[in-house]
Amino acid sequence: MTQKAKVNAAILIIGNEILSGRTQDTNTSTLATWLNSMGVKVEEVRVVPDDEKIIIKTLNLLRSSYDYVFTTGGIGPTHDDITAQSVSKAFGIKYEIHKQAFKILEAYYKPGEFNEGRQKMAWMPENANLILNPTSGAPGFSVENVFSLPGVPSILKSMLGGLKNTIVGGEPIKSLTISLRTVESEIANSLTKVQNDNQDVEIGSYPFFHAGKLGVSIVIRSEDQNKIDICNSQILKFINKMKIEVVDR
Amino acid sequence: MTQKAKVNAAILIIGNEILSGRTQDTNTSTLATWLNSMGVKVEEVRVVPDDEKIIIKTLNLLRSSYDYVFTTGGIGPTHDDITAQSVSKAFGIKYEIHKQAFKILEAYYKPGEFNEGRQKMAWMPENANLILNPTSGAPGFSVENVFSLPGVPSILKSMLGGLKNTIVGGEPIKSLTISLRTVESEIANSLTKVQNDNQDVEIGSYPFFHAGKLGVSIVIRSEDQNKIDICNSQILKFINKMKIEVVDR
Repeated sequence: MTQKAKVNAAILIIGNEILSGRTQDTNTSTLATWLNSMGVKVEEVRVVPDDEKIIIKTLNLLRSSYDYVFTTGGIGPTHDDITAQSVSKAFGIKYEIHKQAFKILEAYYKPGEFNEGRQKMAWMPENANLILNPTSGAPGFSVENVFSLPGVPSILKSMLGGLKNTIVGGEPIKSLTISLRTVESEIANSLTKVQNDNQDVEIGSYPFFHAGKLGVSIVIRSEDQNKIDICNSQILKFINKMKIEVVDR
Repeated sequence: MTQKAKVNAAILIIGNEILSGRTQDTNTSTLATWLNSMGVKVEEVRVVPDDEKIIIKTLNLLRSSYDYVFTTGGIGPTHDDITAQSVSKAFGIKYEIHKQAFKILEAYYKPGEFNEGRQKMAWMPENANLILNPTSGAPGFSVENVFSLPGVPSILKSMLGGLKNTIVGGEPIKSLTISLRTVESEIANSLTKVQNDNQDVEIGSYPFFHAGKLGVSIVIRSEDQNKIDICNSQILKFINKMKIEVVDR
């Protein structure tokens, strides 16, 4: 694969526990930060229930719309773990025991402990590529541009390292943050002018409350460092004129 | 409105900062927990960028698919806050100064401080219903079944109380959690049998790692307490037989 200027991705969070509010998703932030660092921009996230039809429909839509799709959740041993069978059906390929995954799991457990529940974790789409799991044995897998990872955040994190050479990103997305002792409404007009003058740069404004004081972080994002620098100098110019303090954050 | 048996909702998170990984969304969990307690089941969450076309398209799809839609983010004073204008366009109604919102904001700020940036927060879809903001003045708003709330979690939380009488939920969704000193693969088969015998009950299995020990929480969810009790007794039966310890969590 040759490097493209822009590479994008979607994240598909699978799990009733996120939709019920019981569990706070943190994988989006982990994946997005990691993908950004490799020049892959996350453009959409969806959270769906453990429902095969919905997973299949959503996955087929996302995988045809984005360069990469990352799914999280639903690859464990219990009845509500239906990601592998759903991915198989989405691609129209067999759902079967993956020999290499079976061997990895067999070696991971003590003799006699590799029971039926655990063997379920070796069932995958035919010829899936494995994503190795240094934490708890059970591998994730990928088919074409779809990468299926577990829902447990610490395990997901530990598996990303093994994917580094698989994901081909574009220009890394650079970002610069300027934190100010001000409120958004004071700088809104000046910031709008900078955004209008630099339409292909992403400028975000985020209020914060830190150590008892209000402030605003301006985040400038682009693949092009020059464009970030231009915005930065335009922002610093109006900040100086308005005598707004720049703070660490 | 008369009470329906099942009432559902979608959450639309608007913000580049979530997609870039810079900000960890926590509003989904807050909203989902609150909606659940009122008998409204969140069936889908989407995170989209600050892009008017995408917001309009997604909002129109969600508002025709679910009883309620909650948007978070993009209602502040800066250029990247485009939720109000996007909602107006999605409904095909005017985007204009909301007189009551203008008065609230005018009274909130000191004389001379109600500048253009702040006045932007009074621009809303024509005849929108206000959602009062006890924390920082600027109201949210609703149009038909779409409720627009801010992105800052503490402000969003403080505004939910004012919405209680507006949201008409169905049967409250009850839930029971059984936490066990075991691993998922040990109970996977027995739990599958319980799920198969009780197909209209949602049974989830979630591994945890707490105080240095592994465990599994089984979560049973239904509008019908009887059905929860039946699942509970079936689960306790196999747990006792297998001599698995029930733990607090």
